[in-house]
Amino acid sequence: MRVRVNAASPFARKVRIVARETGLAERIEEIETTVSPIAPNKELAGANPLVKIPALLLDDGTTLYDSRVICEYLDAAAGGRLFSQGEARWPALRLQALCDGILDAAVLTRYEVAVRPEASRWNEWIAGQRLKIDGGLSALDEAQPGFGASFGIGQIGAACVLGYLDFRFPEIDWRARHPRLKDWFAQVLARPSVRDTTPRA
Amino acid sequence: MRVRVNAASPFARKVRIVARETGLAERIEEIETTVSPIAPNKELAGANPLVKIPALLLDDGTTLYDSRVICEYLDAAAGGRLFSQGEARWPALRLQALCDGILDAAVLTRYEVAVRPEASRWNEWIAGQRLKIDGGLSALDEAQPGFGASFGIGQIGAACVLGYLDFRFPEIDWRARHPRLKDWFAQVLARPSVRDTTPRA
Repeated sequence: MRVRVNAASPFARKVRIVARETGLAERIEEIETTVSPIAPNKELAGANPLVKIPALLLDDGTTLYDSRVICEYLDAAAGGRLFSQGEARWPALRLQALCDGILDAAVLTRYEVAVRPEASRWNEWIAGQRLKIDGGLSALDEAQPGFGASFGIGQIGAACVLGYLDFRFPEIDWRARHPRLKDWFAQVLARPSVRDTTPRA
Repeated sequence: MRVRVNAASPFARKVRIVARETGLAERIEEIETTVSPIAPNKELAGANPLVKIPALLLDDGTTLYDSRVICEYLDAAAGGRLFSQGEARWPALRLQALCDGILDAAVLTRYEVAVRPEASRWNEWIAGQRLKIDGGLSALDEAQPGFGASFGIGQIGAACVLGYLDFRFPEIDWRARHPRLKDWFAQVLARPSVRDTTPRA
């Protein structure tokens, strides 16, 4: 298998962490792929019509996307340890959705402040996305005592959120308001899957 | 159960169709909820920190989000007919992801052209999102012969895409380029679950 990723992308990072946590990383070639919302990568468009990463290129020539689908697919291929089944499934999927939603708001903010021409920026939009990030972080902090010692898909999402905020929005200084998340993330950084995938430009 | 929805939202429509297709609609009260990316609804924020609909309010006081999680939860509660298991699961989840991605691009375009102040609009952004919509529609058209007679989560997503484009972007005129989708959607419109949830402002 091959997977189109980008070292800066938090959604690609979810997949890269899952590949490592499931032991599948050696069977998956990571292809660094440049993406832009305004200059679509034509090679990527041939694999994923939404022109987004991550995109998993299967050996039969088909492609899987988006990050949620790829993560669940890889986990199932490895025996299904990271996605809970039964009643535990719903809090885990909600936690993943919470993290994906924080990341959506953060990535949209990044496009607004770093890609969009300065004259076209809209402060109310930035403020609206910031409310989602802040509210999402508070909910993540409340959920943290339930994380336990496990590192399932929800916790993987949380690691990608906190790492992305450190990478692109250090001024948010989430550690100051969320000491539980700070302590949890410090422990998580010891995992090779997390350390190996630290975001970079 | 109660669910916060909005008659214009294509993501809420996924949930509303699933509620009807699973026979659970009578047990779920739909609460019409106003949302805006720049004027967050505080009541909604109390249920979903991302301040988005749909949000499913469970009887135990917890909330489930986003649309994918709610749809799978409702389907599981009803016996699991709309989400495939085994090898058929991955094409179905990819089809849902394709439709969600087209909808993300369409909703972002809607915000850009109908909510953002005119002086702050950015044509390259609109063009980039339009490429995702057009590429996504072509992929949907290619996938259509595989839809068969079933109406699972992927087909439900497709109905929400086509209905939303009719509602907000009639000028895209997707029927002109995708006659297979045109014929399929004409049949799908006969379903009460689809007819009952026609988007309105």
